[in-house]
Amino acid sequence: MTTMHATTPTRLGEVVERVRTRAPLVQCLTNSVVTNVTANVLLAAGAAPAMVDTEEEAGLLAGVAGAVLVNLGTLTPGQVGGMRAAVRAARSAGVPWVLDPVAVGVLPVRTALAQELATRGPAVVRGNASEIAGLAGGAGGRGVDSLLTPDDVHEIALRLAREHRTAVAVSGARDLVTDGDTQLRIAAGHPLMTRVTGVGCSLGALVAACTAVEDDAVLAAAAATAWMCVAAEDAAVGAAGPGTFAVALIDRLAAVGAQDVADRTRIS
Amino acid sequence: MTTMHATTPTRLGEVVERVRTRAPLVQCLTNSVVTNVTANVLLAAGAAPAMVDTEEEAGLLAGVAGAVLVNLGTLTPGQVGGMRAAVRAARSAGVPWVLDPVAVGVLPVRTALAQELATRGPAVVRGNASEIAGLAGGAGGRGVDSLLTPDDVHEIALRLAREHRTAVAVSGARDLVTDGDTQLRIAAGHPLMTRVTGVGCSLGALVAACTAVEDDAVLAAAAATAWMCVAAEDAAVGAAGPGTFAVALIDRLAAVGAQDVADRTRIS
Amino acid sequence: MTTMHATTPTRLGEVVERVRTRAPLVQCLTNSVVTNVTANVLLAAGAAPAMVDTEEEAGLLAGVAGAVLVNLGTLTPGQVGGMRAAVRAARSAGVPWVLDPVAVGVLPVRTALAQELATRGPAVVRGNASEIAGLAGGAGGRGVDSLLTPDDVHEIALRLAREHRTAVAVSGARDLVTDGDTQLRIAAGHPLMTRVTGVGCSLGALVAACTAVEDDAVLAAAAATAWMCVAAEDAAVGAAGPGTFAVALIDRLAAVGAQDVADRTRIS
Repeated sequence: MTTMHATTPTRLGEVVERVRTRAPLVQCLTNSVVTNVTANVLLAAGAAPAMVDTEEEAGLLAGVAGAVLVNLGTLTPGQVGGMRAAVRAARSAGVPWVLDPVAVGVLPVRTALAQELATRGPAVVRGNASEIAGLAGGAGGRGVDSLLTPDDVHEIALRLAREHRTAVAVSGARDLVTDGDTQLRIAAGHPLMTRVTGVGCSLGALVAACTAVEDDAVLAAAAATAWMCVAAEDAAVGAAGPGTFAVALIDRLAAVGAQDVADRTRIS
Repeated sequence: MTTMHATTPTRLGEVVERVRTRAPLVQCLTNSVVTNVTANVLLAAGAAPAMVDTEEEAGLLAGVAGAVLVNLGTLTPGQVGGMRAAVRAARSAGVPWVLDPVAVGVLPVRTALAQELATRGPAVVRGNASEIAGLAGGAGGRGVDSLLTPDDVHEIALRLAREHRTAVAVSGARDLVTDGDTQLRIAAGHPLMTRVTGVGCSLGALVAACTAVEDDAVLAAAAATAWMCVAAEDAAVGAAGPGTFAVALIDRLAAVGAQDVADRTRIS
Repeated sequence: MTTMHATTPTRLGEVVERVRTRAPLVQCLTNSVVTNVTANVLLAAGAAPAMVDTEEEAGLLAGVAGAVLVNLGTLTPGQVGGMRAAVRAARSAGVPWVLDPVAVGVLPVRTALAQELATRGPAVVRGNASEIAGLAGGAGGRGVDSLLTPDDVHEIALRLAREHRTAVAVSGARDLVTDGDTQLRIAAGHPLMTRVTGVGCSLGALVAACTAVEDDAVLAAAAATAWMCVAAEDAAVGAAGPGTFAVALIDRLAAVGAQDVADRTRIS
């Protein structure tokens, strides 16, 4: 069981360092909008991305990957088969996998799939507040996204974590990470993170990379969140807009050290 | 009916401002090469992109979107069903939609689909000169692209606009926007726009964002064109090549104000 | 038959110049992670990219393209049909085509397809050392990538080139290009090339662009390799990390001249 003292800033930095040292293979079944930026985020972090997502091949790789990301952003019928195969293989091989239920609650096809996959042992479920609410069966719908914050879905996140014995990470101005028992809040990041596509989705991949090197899923999710936020804060300095910010974010993900993450993350 | 005095630079600036204020949800069914840059262009503009394009989900979202983009760049069988569903739902809900007939005239599958969709009430058809010629049944084929200018297809564009009761926007060094009656020419932009993939496709998405906040389709298409061109002119200043230009273009789309667009657009 | 003196730095520069002058249409059937960067690399180089890859359309374009790239990175069932159609059409029209066997040797579906396509007359097969070993039937598997260098697969590459009467280009710190007789080594590039997704895949597209303007496949592959490496060396100067490097790489691909390539490439 995770206890409060287990997740210190120093331990977050150690997870970052371990991703760099071990270069885990992270298989991503993700949406077509963010494949490129997701691969670049993983490469900048020191991980090895593999974007294999078809029914024919996904299961074969998942069994030997360090971690697997399943992101429902642009779900095609072929990908659904790949996701089921990858989750099955990961689970059977003891490989941790991360569920990112993009736009769940708004669209019924992906909502049903997300609810099905949530029962299959994800190490972490990562989403924004409306997606976590949607996954828990709450009313989704257009516009929910801007109306809910991690605080609003706090109880829902705890319940979801307990029900599925998973960690739940909710993105927002002040991120929430919980396993239903431990509750961490990370206040960090920058508003420009919401003006570039794929920052949240890439965070899901970075969470997966961290689960490949850290068994404590809350610690892994918190480390990835802190890493992305510290890099984003740096990237925003001197950015002329979302274009230069996105480029600097990749630079900074590669540059920030374990010490930066340890020194600059405020956990409560 | 749109009249000449309706589209002044000041009114173009007002449309830009309205996109920023209202943040319309723009659903994009677009090609796999440009999904990322299209989403980033919309985010920089202040709109909310949603790249849902499958047969199962596209129609559900189109009915509640602010506008829909249908871009035929890399047409898969699954996407064709999604496009028909999205157009049907948009039309039935009174949501404006934009058709971008990429490479139509060259390849028969997409040419037939574009001609079918053109009859289903697009608010705007946006393409380069060869694509507009191809859509109108003219001889397409490789190399046509570099041979035709908006001037060359002027009569074809007018005829197409009248036939389908739509606005037609033709990209080139001097853009043409017409509804078959009003004819606007916008002389702006920069040659680097043709050296980065997705600038034209992203313009289609920006046109869609503008139709979500402006019922006059000619004004909406002209506002998006002027916005992109002013941003591109700024981005070209100090760019070391197409790489830095593309990054600065996103920065500038976010930065240019209604006044910039109003002051710097030359309409004739 | 290619002879040693045929591939001088000066001749490499001439190929670069010819791509700029003739702007060949390069059709890319490639993976979903790198479509955007591949198109931007081709545009920066002065070529005209067309990313048409479906079974319905791929064959129609391949017959009129300047060259075709077939990259197996994220193989969908629809793309497999498109690849077979494109290769058939290219071959029948005498259009050169390039095979990039991404992750072959690791995953059986793509390994079988790569071995089938290799028998259908590619002008160049381009991959990293483990992929070339995998294509030749060697043991693939996770981690092979980091263990093998072009030197390790030297004999395999020669054998593969002779068996399929093709040029084989093996990427690494010191690239190898061979047709089974001539053997070139190009020592150039920068380690950041491996920290950005799509550099290798884009090199495959640049090789295709060069085959469109140069019948000697070894010379074409060497020219593309030298071009990318010289641009990467320039881009690494002053880069703050992989983000700024990737942007500068596009700038430099557009900027480096035939003379730069001729002066700075070390062939042995």
